[in-house]
Amino acid sequence: MSDKVILLAHGSGGRLGQELVEKLFLHFFDNPALLQLDDSAVLDLPAAQSATYQRRLAISTDSYVVSPLFFPGGDIGKLAICGTVNDLSMSGAQPLWLSAGFIIEEGLPLADLERIVASMAETAAQAGVQIVAGDTKVVDRGSADKLFINTAGVGLVPPGVVIAGDRARPGDLVLINGTIGDHGMTIMTQREGLQFDSPLASDCAPLAGLVARLLAALPAGTLHCLRDPTRGGLATTLNELAARSRVGIEIEEDALPVREAVRGACELLGLDPLYVANEGKAVAIVAPEAAEAALAALQSDSYGREAAVIGRVTEAHPGRVVLHTTLGARRMVDMLVGEQLPRIC
Amino acid sequence: MSDKVILLAHGSGGRLGQELVEKLFLHFFDNPALLQLDDSAVLDLPAAQSATYQRRLAISTDSYVVSPLFFPGGDIGKLAICGTVNDLSMSGAQPLWLSAGFIIEEGLPLADLERIVASMAETAAQAGVQIVAGDTKVVDRGSADKLFINTAGVGLVPPGVVIAGDRARPGDLVLINGTIGDHGMTIMTQREGLQFDSPLASDCAPLAGLVARLLAALPAGTLHCLRDPTRGGLATTLNELAARSRVGIEIEEDALPVREAVRGACELLGLDPLYVANEGKAVAIVAPEAAEAALAALQSDSYGREAAVIGRVTEAHPGRVVLHTTLGARRMVDMLVGEQLPRIC
Repeated sequence: MSDKVILLAHGSGGRLGQELVEKLFLHFFDNPALLQLDDSAVLDLPAAQSATYQRRLAISTDSYVVSPLFFPGGDIGKLAICGTVNDLSMSGAQPLWLSAGFIIEEGLPLADLERIVASMAETAAQAGVQIVAGDTKVVDRGSADKLFINTAGVGLVPPGVVIAGDRARPGDLVLINGTIGDHGMTIMTQREGLQFDSPLASDCAPLAGLVARLLAALPAGTLHCLRDPTRGGLATTLNELAARSRVGIEIEEDALPVREAVRGACELLGLDPLYVANEGKAVAIVAPEAAEAALAALQSDSYGREAAVIGRVTEAHPGRVVLHTTLGARRMVDMLVGEQLPRIC
Repeated sequence: MSDKVILLAHGSGGRLGQELVEKLFLHFFDNPALLQLDDSAVLDLPAAQSATYQRRLAISTDSYVVSPLFFPGGDIGKLAICGTVNDLSMSGAQPLWLSAGFIIEEGLPLADLERIVASMAETAAQAGVQIVAGDTKVVDRGSADKLFINTAGVGLVPPGVVIAGDRARPGDLVLINGTIGDHGMTIMTQREGLQFDSPLASDCAPLAGLVARLLAALPAGTLHCLRDPTRGGLATTLNELAARSRVGIEIEEDALPVREAVRGACELLGLDPLYVANEGKAVAIVAPEAAEAALAALQSDSYGREAAVIGRVTEAHPGRVVLHTTLGARRMVDMLVGEQLPRIC
């Protein structure tokens, strides 16, 4: 069906919609729960370990409206899987099941949709999740821009794991699993049509495996916070954590991993990489005695080779983030105010 | 904030986005899981009844792109809650938790968004579900039409309940909980600017309570199928059930509840109410010995007063739906082919 485009009737609930489901979605998202084609997927949780054991679920959702749909390092489909897998992972959950809702503009080439759905299936397999429920709506030309995807996810939080934004404590260390700003600068330079000597690529990646390594490596209770610095960048995420935990955070500019190409593009466009979106990064705040093991665990994962300790949690200036610059100055790092770039994810 | 509009910066992940979350979403969707403001909501399932008991989750999603946003009987927010609550209910699950993803066009009046979010909160309370996770994206003017909402939901399927589209058996009876075509004809006539003597209103309603009554009233294993006839109408839903169960379905035109205003609007626009979308209806297929109790249970619910037995399941013509017309003729009722009206839900 490569020369065809999406028609309004593909979203009707009638025969054409059924064909799209069977030939495209079920082809790529093949699993027994989805194949039932009922109004809901019904799924067995693994048997509980004891009768009184309270199972804890993690639930998360994000809509993806990134433009362009395809970019170096990924596409809207890969992003839609990684983003929700990562949000679940940030609670320490093992991501299990995803739903996917497509809002398609009439006229989208079916070949584009097929490429995106294939990318979702590949990324889901890599992240160990199944896409168990879905929905397709088609809107008339001009009522949406090509394609928006929502994913929601359900994961299972292992017993004893409590990771939340309000658990950072003075003395804790702040780690990140690699370079910042790659996703945002890739999208921006694609849209501006800029070329660089060393090409930029999105860091878009599913972090479920990396978080599992971290949990396995650290003593219980020493991993306090996990958060993925997406929209608003690292600066906004650190501000959220400082505010939630009522602590200060100090970071070292020298310690921040930033690719040369990202640094160059930021200078050209007058942007600060601290505010640029990431899609394959996690900030981890850990008890000081666990920091060495955490760094080693991150660096042992393919998405954490360039992990670094970038700062620490302080009792001073609660709710605020301070950067120690390369030149030895201290400056306050606020949340993002205003919009750096719409449709970055 | 009633004179204000949504800006791109409301979707940035920065300070304005945070304000929108705190002042609007948390105000209306107030619950401890959402208040954590972490990347995922973490929720305790009720303790399992036995160590080996396999918990079954139901998961469903739908995106809502209805135009206009407000219509007699509801709005996009009420629809977004009812639609996903109903999809969960159709598996026999008790709906528990919903996520909500908003894609907003820059310039949407904040007062409209507030009215819609309030409507979602009210409907969620009525349906007994909590909105535990959310996301907001803002796109530039012209890249979406005002507002799209995705909801995904998680429910718990009670032990022993197995309801699915492939469980209809010859001899079973087919019931519906009330009149057909109300939602679709309301949206169509609103968009066409048509006026009628007896005004139309959407049937948009959460059916979690009605399904709970049905499950409580029927002997175990006698409720075979439940499905909500939304896009594509009753005809498409019955065709799906006939195909999934490899049975025939015969329905009686005389028995189909249709409001006079809907019948009139359909005649005027040349439409068949069998293909018009519903948003507060459920088709139930039950073993013959349970039909009387099922009808009584439906009629005892405020959303089932006009419930009726509308047909039966046959061994003959598997995969096909036949209508016995008021005039005594038999005609095949196919699935919807093509698009009756885009953006009906």
